[in-house]
Amino acid sequence: MKGKISIGLCGLGTVGTGVIKILQNHQEEIKYKLGCELEVKKILVHTLEKARDIEVNAGVLTTEPDDLVRDQEIDIIIEVMGGIDSTYELLEKALQHKKHIITANKDLMAVYGQKLHKIAKTNDCDIFYEASVAGGIPILRSLTDGLASDRIQKMMGIVNGTTNYILTKMTDEQRTFTDVLQEAQELGYAESDPAADVGGLDAARKMALLANLAFKMDIHLEDVAVAGITSISQEDIVFAKRLGYVVKLIGIASMEEGKVEVSVEPTLLPQDHPLALVKNEYNAVYVHGEAVGETMFYGPGAGSMPTATSVVSDLMEAVKNIRLGISGNSYITPQFKTKLKNDSEKHSRYFVRLEADDQAGTFQALTNVFTDQNISFAKILQLPGSADSTAEIVMVTHHTSKQQLTNSVDSLNSLEVVKRIISYYRVDGEE
Amino acid sequence: MKGKISIGLCGLGTVGTGVIKILQNHQEEIKYKLGCELEVKKILVHTLEKARDIEVNAGVLTTEPDDLVRDQEIDIIIEVMGGIDSTYELLEKALQHKKHIITANKDLMAVYGQKLHKIAKTNDCDIFYEASVAGGIPILRSLTDGLASDRIQKMMGIVNGTTNYILTKMTDEQRTFTDVLQEAQELGYAESDPAADVGGLDAARKMALLANLAFKMDIHLEDVAVAGITSISQEDIVFAKRLGYVVKLIGIASMEEGKVEVSVEPTLLPQDHPLALVKNEYNAVYVHGEAVGETMFYGPGAGSMPTATSVVSDLMEAVKNIRLGISGNSYITPQFKTKLKNDSEKHSRYFVRLEADDQAGTFQALTNVFTDQNISFAKILQLPGSADSTAEIVMVTHHTSKQQLTNSVDSLNSLEVVKRIISYYRVDGEE
Repeated sequence: MKGKISIGLCGLGTVGTGVIKILQNHQEEIKYKLGCELEVKKILVHTLEKARDIEVNAGVLTTEPDDLVRDQEIDIIIEVMGGIDSTYELLEKALQHKKHIITANKDLMAVYGQKLHKIAKTNDCDIFYEASVAGGIPILRSLTDGLASDRIQKMMGIVNGTTNYILTKMTDEQRTFTDVLQEAQELGYAESDPAADVGGLDAARKMALLANLAFKMDIHLEDVAVAGITSISQEDIVFAKRLGYVVKLIGIASMEEGKVEVSVEPTLLPQDHPLALVKNEYNAVYVHGEAVGETMFYGPGAGSMPTATSVVSDLMEAVKNIRLGISGNSYITPQFKTKLKNDSEKHSRYFVRLEADDQAGTFQALTNVFTDQNISFAKILQLPGSADSTAEIVMVTHHTSKQQLTNSVDSLNSLEVVKRIISYYRVDGEE
Repeated sequence: MKGKISIGLCGLGTVGTGVIKILQNHQEEIKYKLGCELEVKKILVHTLEKARDIEVNAGVLTTEPDDLVRDQEIDIIIEVMGGIDSTYELLEKALQHKKHIITANKDLMAVYGQKLHKIAKTNDCDIFYEASVAGGIPILRSLTDGLASDRIQKMMGIVNGTTNYILTKMTDEQRTFTDVLQEAQELGYAESDPAADVGGLDAARKMALLANLAFKMDIHLEDVAVAGITSISQEDIVFAKRLGYVVKLIGIASMEEGKVEVSVEPTLLPQDHPLALVKNEYNAVYVHGEAVGETMFYGPGAGSMPTATSVVSDLMEAVKNIRLGISGNSYITPQFKTKLKNDSEKHSRYFVRLEADDQAGTFQALTNVFTDQNISFAKILQLPGSADSTAEIVMVTHHTSKQQLTNSVDSLNSLEVVKRIISYYRVDGEE
């Protein structure tokens, strides 16, 4: 077995610097855990001459990717420099030169993940990307390790820190979406173009990755039903609270009888659900496994040191695999044909909020619509509406299919007594 | 490298049966993850002839421990039969025959853990016991893996399911300790002799194990300050709630400037702390690492399938280590001399509840006592007491030392206006 493993590091920003610090400060422990030494042989940077937070030998730095990719002694490439197309080219070449890959680059993995996986597989290489899903939470490893001896039935995740921060502030400080978003942008918690975060796309990419691993099916971004948080109002949050719920942007991936549902949408959870207290920019993934039952992993979704910690954990896994001779097995080959549930097969409870005429017969007209779709109610709340002659009605249904709910909403829209459907959301996490 | 690893299983109760089921149902995935096959070669049972839930070849069963311990082909012994002294003898012999050990036996580990570790080390063997700490939560592995690249500063754990179940019911259903304990015993959630659970001893054993790993010091049960939940009243819970807290039995292990504090005691946590929603028999461990920040692991604390899942995860780790040639490293040698904080070095906030004369000057007398110890207050609540002439006073202090708090309590006890100190508890989990 090799007594020393050599690493090429691409990028020496805050995450890259964090990786070097961890490797320097924990040299002894890492050697002890791996049974061999690690050496960072080359570091790819933009500029050679620059004040840096750490000490590295000048000979280690280079601006030339080929110095890493073509170095025969380098076993593993760590990519923490960002970028998509040119970074892909570098990693593709590295895999062709039989180097294992560790990346924290979620944008790259979203676009080129499956392609990189295939090239890695062909070259008997590992590709690890724990840091790209939920910063400091070892969720990919927990899933793949756990998977070897359990079957995942359902996952619910808060996997986007920006939207969770916004919803937390809207809930705890009674502020509007626009107001909190602006603050989050000023604080650097939200990007200047927040569309991918607040529209749910970023979370959807991560849920697709998680569902791929958990269900061993090829699941693409297009397979995920996505809704964002832009239309959630302060009133929605207040009504949810009165009924005992909190509003979160929840990614769901579940499997029943071989069929899968993957979605990201604003969801009402009971106030005492373990995910309800995941606040601010924190992430958490709740997993229901056939054997182990309910587990949850909670931690920071981003940040340079949490990300660096995840990168080093991936690195240690890659080194173990090299030494075990099982590299190239990290990609869980899709074993099953992708089978997605249709809307009649997706079951959930729903929160429906609408404004209707406050007159005799209104309630009967409403309940007729739901009865026609076989939908019954767990909770109903009626309050004065925006005008003197209207009432606001908030209902939580028992379990029904998404199709039946959509049918009901269509019928409600055509009822004369209904002024408008204000909002409707999934309700999950209850027995 | 060995192409097949042979296992001897001691015990075929619900956990042992669970282990066999997992190994049978996940054969392919396990082989894929390990790069080799696993075979259960011998199973130690009490009675050979017995109706069982699983199929095993008759030749595999034996009632003779030596058939496992002295079998040269067996690499790993899994112990899920329980018992202490005779089980220790079996495992000691197994280690002397160079067999790696996996056990789910927390009573055994509490009594013989350090002895077994030393014998394992001498024989270059691994000993894993994940299932003995918090059933289905991979906390020991997360700590040892994470430790290789981070430094743990503080852990807070709900690591005893029985007490958490009792406190949850007392809080949510406004019932008394005695009442809920009796129910828990009838349901099988509490032992007929519940002393070790409700007195905090079981949790203290687990916190000692966790602190050992996290701080790389020899920490024994005697080093843990322990208080149980038997004296918590319904009123304590209600007052805590009015001030925004929940009462939990929390194990704390923290390190500051090389000195360690390990305790198990009823603790008030803010209602929005991640541990506050860990309900019923669930366990969770909250970890603060220097690099990664806050993480939390949540899951079932017991149960035969969660326990079996943990045993199989340990098994896979042991197999990887055999194949990597790093067996015998699982024991983290205590690197540091054990240094415990004294009471003047332990800092926390406290909740203090007392009954005093309702007369002019009472409040001043009380505040004088605290001012003498340099203690100031964050919250104060005064209500009518049990008699006409008395008042009940509840206070939450700012940070103070345990020594100062004890001094204040002593002084309060000698004040004439104070009828009695009703209760005082640690307050944690706030900024």
